[in-house]
Amino acid sequence: MIPPRGAAPLPVPGFTAAGIPAGIKKRGGPDLMVLASETPATVAGVFTRNVVQAAPVTLSRRVVAGGVCRGVVANSGNANACTGPAGAADAARMAEACGKALGAPPETVAVCSTGVIGQTLPMGRVESGIPRAVAALRPDGWRDAAEAIRTTDTVAKHHAGTVRAGDRTVTVTGIAKGSGMIHPDMATMLAFLATDAPVAAGPLQALLAGATEATFNRITVDGDTSTNDCVLLLAGGAAGGPSLAPGVPGWDAFARLVGEVCDALAQAIVADGEGASRLVTVIVRGLPGEADALRVARQVATSSLVKTALFGADPNWGRLLAAAGQAGVPFDPDAATVRVGDVALVRGGAHLGAEAEAAAAKVMATAAYPITLELGDGPGAAAVRTCDLSYDYVRINADYRT
Amino acid sequence: MIPPRGAAPLPVPGFTAAGIPAGIKKRGGPDLMVLASETPATVAGVFTRNVVQAAPVTLSRRVVAGGVCRGVVANSGNANACTGPAGAADAARMAEACGKALGAPPETVAVCSTGVIGQTLPMGRVESGIPRAVAALRPDGWRDAAEAIRTTDTVAKHHAGTVRAGDRTVTVTGIAKGSGMIHPDMATMLAFLATDAPVAAGPLQALLAGATEATFNRITVDGDTSTNDCVLLLAGGAAGGPSLAPGVPGWDAFARLVGEVCDALAQAIVADGEGASRLVTVIVRGLPGEADALRVARQVATSSLVKTALFGADPNWGRLLAAAGQAGVPFDPDAATVRVGDVALVRGGAHLGAEAEAAAAKVMATAAYPITLELGDGPGAAAVRTCDLSYDYVRINADYRT
Repeated sequence: MIPPRGAAPLPVPGFTAAGIPAGIKKRGGPDLMVLASETPATVAGVFTRNVVQAAPVTLSRRVVAGGVCRGVVANSGNANACTGPAGAADAARMAEACGKALGAPPETVAVCSTGVIGQTLPMGRVESGIPRAVAALRPDGWRDAAEAIRTTDTVAKHHAGTVRAGDRTVTVTGIAKGSGMIHPDMATMLAFLATDAPVAAGPLQALLAGATEATFNRITVDGDTSTNDCVLLLAGGAAGGPSLAPGVPGWDAFARLVGEVCDALAQAIVADGEGASRLVTVIVRGLPGEADALRVARQVATSSLVKTALFGADPNWGRLLAAAGQAGVPFDPDAATVRVGDVALVRGGAHLGAEAEAAAAKVMATAAYPITLELGDGPGAAAVRTCDLSYDYVRINADYRT
Repeated sequence: MIPPRGAAPLPVPGFTAAGIPAGIKKRGGPDLMVLASETPATVAGVFTRNVVQAAPVTLSRRVVAGGVCRGVVANSGNANACTGPAGAADAARMAEACGKALGAPPETVAVCSTGVIGQTLPMGRVESGIPRAVAALRPDGWRDAAEAIRTTDTVAKHHAGTVRAGDRTVTVTGIAKGSGMIHPDMATMLAFLATDAPVAAGPLQALLAGATEATFNRITVDGDTSTNDCVLLLAGGAAGGPSLAPGVPGWDAFARLVGEVCDALAQAIVADGEGASRLVTVIVRGLPGEADALRVARQVATSSLVKTALFGADPNWGRLLAAAGQAGVPFDPDAATVRVGDVALVRGGAHLGAEAEAAAAKVMATAAYPITLELGDGPGAAAVRTCDLSYDYVRINADYRT
């Protein structure tokens, strides 16, 4: 585990949060979370693209399509995935129970689950837990909520900030769970953000989609995509003033803050990747377009050979170039430059020798560093964050259910 | 390492082979191989699709385009990849030296290299070794040749067979190296096959391309694709009789034998995958087309989460379905059937319980078994062979260059 990132969560005017133990996790501990908005908030959501989608994902897509949200209820310890019609009914019962406790229509309650796939939820415990979680709601309950969605995560993940947006100050607070880009078993990554800024559902969705693409979608632990991935952003409007949207004063600052919170949560997830000991940012530059650069960066960041070399702190530039070449994006390897931190290993295709490798190995012994591949003189650049592939990753995943 | 597969290599009339130590590998041992045809053989070749291609790959593509081959010279210990113009000149010098020793035009000599990327070949040793290897050529030299192309391979890989084709008997013998679908460092997988059947270059190329697609392209160890991958098939014609081609009596039997030799070599490679302890065939059935099934099978076979579960002998069907869902091919998980060996874990979407899991775990403790996913009632089916992801894979690849 790399030291966690992320500032302390800040209360968001108009929102309360809670996390409690409800007996869902076999090992005990907090496992049920509620996030509530005093007023009908607008809501944006981004969901897994896996063909196999958990029941709560299907339900929450409908809530987001409606554009109005009063609360989010989430459990850890059980993903409610591959559970068929019974799973869909259980997700609906969670929304109903939470809506009832909040005094809100069930169709305004989003539901998320994370944990083991293929087991039905212990609905007795879930339904008796929900009113207790609602009773525990507090403005400063975010940290408890973050604890309650942990699975293999070694730390709770949160970030928050405030910004002047027009003539008012708005807050954005986010929590996340995920110990790997995806762990189908663990139904991987969830993130919940709330803001007191007033924003209509349309621009809120566009903002969240863009921020997710630039942050959560650019991290990888093992290249697997979950059945339960879900990012939600609620905007309650308690900060007052005119609704924020592109072109409205304050929008840019607000959008930057949302991006910053997403980025901090994304970094916290990859830094806490299963078995990870290093956080590495793979930067690709010089290709014709950003899409080309992203494709190459993703290929390098997910290569098992690259990730084991990161674990071994081996400045193995041949693996980096070979992985880059696998993406199918043309470039001239004889003109490539490869850097680890500030140390050039290859410049214009020429290997810079043992001294450069020794200096690069020192950088690679640190907890976090960038690797830069310059593959031409085009304007396309992209970055993907990854971690190393270690013995512990194998241990955690070979033994997971035993 | 799983017990190797493959029959003993058979002499192929018209061909000789040799493998000798030439001082290219740091650790010593056989590292230079020559395969020679007494007469100009027709030749077919399939090469890596990586954008980064080693110098010998570029050279051998030209030989295959010419359609005529008198010999193949290959070294282990150095991939001659990412070596720029000097690497291209070195590959050309290898072809010249081998052509001279064989009394053959250099443009009829294919060249392959496998080993570390980014270092120039010790050409003095290579050029003094080639005449010695040619002097050592023998009809029964295939086993020595297979030894000389090993890198991290724990065993030499070979297979051979004979078949009645029309009114004559033809032989197909093949050797291969590769300890993982691809190891950019190790410049991974090479396979050389020879036959005494008379076959023109056109049908030979079509046959090899099809056989490669169905065998070498359906194995995976780590999902990485090498800069040096190369499969060559030489047809010398010493068996006599009319040239074999589709529609000519004996073609089908001959084509089946070529496919069988490729399949045995491909299985030997994945069984000897770095750190592998299990050989698993992922079979996907019931999708609309074969391409759909292949996409899903590849996704499952390359998933790190699936491969660590194979290592742990954990019948984690949720991971199998989630990995399948990641391929982007639509199917209904609530109607899926999952089998490990003959044991059904999930039937029609319903989990069959702890007893089924215990039976499946027993199958998974064996060295080789199939996993079958039935994802619908369409005609599309495909199989991909994979191995587990173990501590040893991490150890081998974290420490590789040290």
